[in-house]
Amino acid sequence: MDGTSKSDSWRADRDHFIHPYTDFTTFAETGSQVMSHGDAMMITDEDGRSYLDGIAGLWCVNLGHGRREIASAMGEQAARLGYFNTFGHSTNTPAALLARKLAERTPGDLNHVFFTTGGSTANDTAVRLAHYYFNRLGKPAKKKILSRHNGYHGSTYFAAALTGIHGIHYGFDRIAEDIVHHLSAADCFRRPDGMDEAQFCDFLVDEARYRIMQLGAENIAAFIAEPVMGAGGVLVAPEGYHRRMADLCRENDILYIADEVVTGFGRLGHWFASEDRFAHVPDILITAKGISSGYCPIGAAIFSDRIHEVISVPQGPGGVLTHGFTYSGHPVSCAAALKSIELYEQEDVFANVLDTGPYLQERLQGLTRHEIVGDVRGEQLMAGVELVANRASKTSFAPELAAAEIVFGRARELGVIVRPVGNTVIMSPPLIISREQVDKLVDALDQAIEDVSGQLLSQAAAA
Amino acid sequence: MDGTSKSDSWRADRDHFIHPYTDFTTFAETGSQVMSHGDAMMITDEDGRSYLDGIAGLWCVNLGHGRREIASAMGEQAARLGYFNTFGHSTNTPAALLARKLAERTPGDLNHVFFTTGGSTANDTAVRLAHYYFNRLGKPAKKKILSRHNGYHGSTYFAAALTGIHGIHYGFDRIAEDIVHHLSAADCFRRPDGMDEAQFCDFLVDEARYRIMQLGAENIAAFIAEPVMGAGGVLVAPEGYHRRMADLCRENDILYIADEVVTGFGRLGHWFASEDRFAHVPDILITAKGISSGYCPIGAAIFSDRIHEVISVPQGPGGVLTHGFTYSGHPVSCAAALKSIELYEQEDVFANVLDTGPYLQERLQGLTRHEIVGDVRGEQLMAGVELVANRASKTSFAPELAAAEIVFGRARELGVIVRPVGNTVIMSPPLIISREQVDKLVDALDQAIEDVSGQLLSQAAAA
Repeated sequence: MDGTSKSDSWRADRDHFIHPYTDFTTFAETGSQVMSHGDAMMITDEDGRSYLDGIAGLWCVNLGHGRREIASAMGEQAARLGYFNTFGHSTNTPAALLARKLAERTPGDLNHVFFTTGGSTANDTAVRLAHYYFNRLGKPAKKKILSRHNGYHGSTYFAAALTGIHGIHYGFDRIAEDIVHHLSAADCFRRPDGMDEAQFCDFLVDEARYRIMQLGAENIAAFIAEPVMGAGGVLVAPEGYHRRMADLCRENDILYIADEVVTGFGRLGHWFASEDRFAHVPDILITAKGISSGYCPIGAAIFSDRIHEVISVPQGPGGVLTHGFTYSGHPVSCAAALKSIELYEQEDVFANVLDTGPYLQERLQGLTRHEIVGDVRGEQLMAGVELVANRASKTSFAPELAAAEIVFGRARELGVIVRPVGNTVIMSPPLIISREQVDKLVDALDQAIEDVSGQLLSQAAAA
Repeated sequence: MDGTSKSDSWRADRDHFIHPYTDFTTFAETGSQVMSHGDAMMITDEDGRSYLDGIAGLWCVNLGHGRREIASAMGEQAARLGYFNTFGHSTNTPAALLARKLAERTPGDLNHVFFTTGGSTANDTAVRLAHYYFNRLGKPAKKKILSRHNGYHGSTYFAAALTGIHGIHYGFDRIAEDIVHHLSAADCFRRPDGMDEAQFCDFLVDEARYRIMQLGAENIAAFIAEPVMGAGGVLVAPEGYHRRMADLCRENDILYIADEVVTGFGRLGHWFASEDRFAHVPDILITAKGISSGYCPIGAAIFSDRIHEVISVPQGPGGVLTHGFTYSGHPVSCAAALKSIELYEQEDVFANVLDTGPYLQERLQGLTRHEIVGDVRGEQLMAGVELVANRASKTSFAPELAAAEIVFGRARELGVIVRPVGNTVIMSPPLIISREQVDKLVDALDQAIEDVSGQLLSQAAAA
C-alpha cells in the first residue's frame, strides 16, 4: 500500500470509519487513500495523483466520473423535492416515471418495480416477496432458495446467506441455513478434468436437477444467479446454461431471480443481459449500481405480471403489502437514474461497449504470456485475470501471498486501478472507455504482472 | 382517498410501481397522489394542492423541504466525485469527515462508524457485527436478540424479524425465529390495570430479567430498542426504563443497540436521545433519516471503542472484515449529511424543538375532548393520538374501519398531512415548525376528528 498524505480527512477516516473489506493488519498504519474528484475515466486523490479507473468505482460509474448532467439533475430534484415517502397512496414524479422506464427496458412481462436502497436490499426483497408469493398461492412449503458457490448477492444478513463465496463467511454466522442451498459455480476454468464446455453444462444442469429431486420442488421457491458472476471472479457460464436452468426452474415451479446488479445497464452491451445475451426471461430481475451510474444509492427488484397478480391481491388488516424502505422510490435517487438512462441512450453508450468490450477481452488474452496468469476470462467490459502459482496444475497462490493485491498495488503505481478479489484481478471500467484507454489499462496490467511475477513465484516456491 | 389528476406520471406509477404499505384494495382505482415539490413546511402535489407536512416526509425531512443549501452540496459533490467505493483502503473526503462528525456528536465512546444505505441495513449490520463480535471473543453461543413488541426496526428480512409489530408479519415468513425474542412494549397506555408508571417500569424490567434467566445470558447477544417507539405508535417508556434496561444488559454482557433512526438528529431536541434524554450510553447506536434530513439515502451503525477493539483485530484470509455495501460511505449521501449537520447547528434547530415540541404536546392534549381519542402521547416533535371505539375500556376500532386512515383523509382535505398507523395518528413535523404552524396542524386534526367521530362511533356500534 503506498502512502497517502496524512491530511485531516485521512486522520478522520482512520480514526472513525469502519470500512467494508479493508485489511485491518495494515489499516491503522496506512489508513485509506482519500479520493477527491473524478473526470470521465480518471479518478484523482487528495494528493493530486490521478488514475485510470479500471473498475468504475465498483462496477458502478458506467457513464464515467464528473457527469454534470447527472449532478444537475440530482441538485435540481433535491431543491424541488428532496424527499417524501412513497407509502400509502403517495408517490413522486421521478419515481413514477422511472418505474415505467424500467418496465419498458426489462424483458418480457417484468413490469412491476419495487424500489430499494441497493443490490443487497433488492435481493433480500426478492426472496422475501417470493416467499410471500408462494404463501399467497397456498404453497407455504416453497421456501428454499437455490444459490451458487461463488455467487455474490450482497451484505444484508439474508443476502449474505445467499452469497456463496467461502471467504466472506469467515468469522460470521450464516442465518437461514435451512433455506439457502448452494449449487456448484459455473466455473469453466476449474471444471472437472476431461469435460468440454458442453459436457460441463450438462453436468451443472444435472446437478441442479438432482438437487431439486433431493430437496423436493415443492419445497423450493427460487433460484438466484448472476448472468456472469461478478465478485466471485468474473465467471462466464457455459453457453446455454442460463436458458436450460430457466427451463428447469419453470418445469418445477421455481422462480428464476436474475441478479443483474453488475450486468445490467450496459456492462454486457445491453440494458439487461438475461434475454439479450442469455435468451431467457427471469421471473424477478434485480438491478442497482449502473441504474444511477453510481451517483445516488438505489436498487430495484422488478417482478413479472404473473407474480404481481398474486402479491397485489389485498390481504391482511388494511390490505397493505407490509414491506418497504423509507428510501424506496427516493426522488433524488430516481432523478439520477432517469438522467443516467437518458445519457445511455443519447450517447449510444452500449454501442461503445460492443466495440471496446471485445477489444478488451482480446487484448487481455495477451496476458497469458505470463506464467502466473492461469485464466483470462470475461465478456464485454467485465474481465477477470486469475493468477496461479502453477498453471499446469491450476494451483492457487496461498491467500497470505496476496498475489492479486500485489498486482493491484503495482498497477496503481503505474496509474491504473484494477480490483483484487481472491487471486483474481477484476476489471469493470466505465462504459465510455476508448480503445486507447483499453490499451493503457491492459498495458499497465501487463507491466504490473511482469514486475511482480518473479517475486510471487519465488515466494510460492519457498512456501 | 380523494382523487388525483390522471396525469402521465399518475398512470406510470399505478401501472409499474409496487408501493410499500399501500392498500391494494383501492390502489388500482385511485392510484397515488403524486407529490411534486416542497418548500419549508409545505408540500405540493402535481395538481397544485399544498399541505402542511405534519410528518416530515416520514420522520425524515427535519430541516424542511426545498433546502437549496443541501441541494447545492449534493449537486456539487456529485459533479466532483459522484461515487467511488470505500472498500480496501479507499475512502472519500465527505465520508471521512462525516465519520468524525458523527463520532463527535454521539455519546460516550461511540466512535466508530459503519455506513449503510438506511435504517434497515444499519440494524441488520448491527446484529450481524454483534454476532461477529461475540464469535471473536470466543462466545459463539451469544446469538439471541431481545427486541420488543411494537418495535419497528426495518424491512430487510432480518430487520423485519427484529420488528415486533404484529400486522407487519401477516402473510410473511419470519426468519431467525430461534434468534429473535420479543419482550413487551413499554406501552404506558395499555399497561396492566392498577399499575402506576413506576410499577409498570418494574414490571417491564422484571420481565426482561426473567427472560434473560430463561434464555440464558450466555446465549444473548443484544437488546435492541428505540428510545421512543416510532411506527409502533409513538410509545414513550416509563421514566427510568432505558437506563435500567441498559444496566441490566451490562450486568449480563448483553449489548444495548439504540435504534435512533427516528429520535436522532433533533426530533427529541438533541443530536441523540440515548444519553441526553434517557441517561445511558448504548453499545451500538443506529441512525438514518434525519442524518441527511432525508435528502439522500444513508444510514449508519456506530460502535463503541470496546466493540471496535475486538472486531478490528485482523482475521481470516487477508484480514478483512467481510461485510459492507457498495454504497457504504457514498460521497453524495455523506455530503448531504454534512450539510444537514451544519444547518442544524447554524440555525439552532434543536432549540426550536425544545420550544415548539412541548407546545405541540400541550396543544394535542386538547384533543382528549373527543370521545374517540383514547390517548395523546409523545415527546417534543414526536406525537401520537390513539383512537378508540370506547375510551373507558380502551377498546380499539376494528382494523376494517380504518379509523386513523379516515382521520388522515379528512385532515388532508383540511390541508395537513398526518400519518395513520393502526389506530394511531402520528405526527413528526419538520423541526423548523413554528408555533403558528403547530396551531394549524393541531386545529386541522381537531377539526378532522370532530368531523368523522360520529360516523366512526356509529359504525363501531353497528359492528
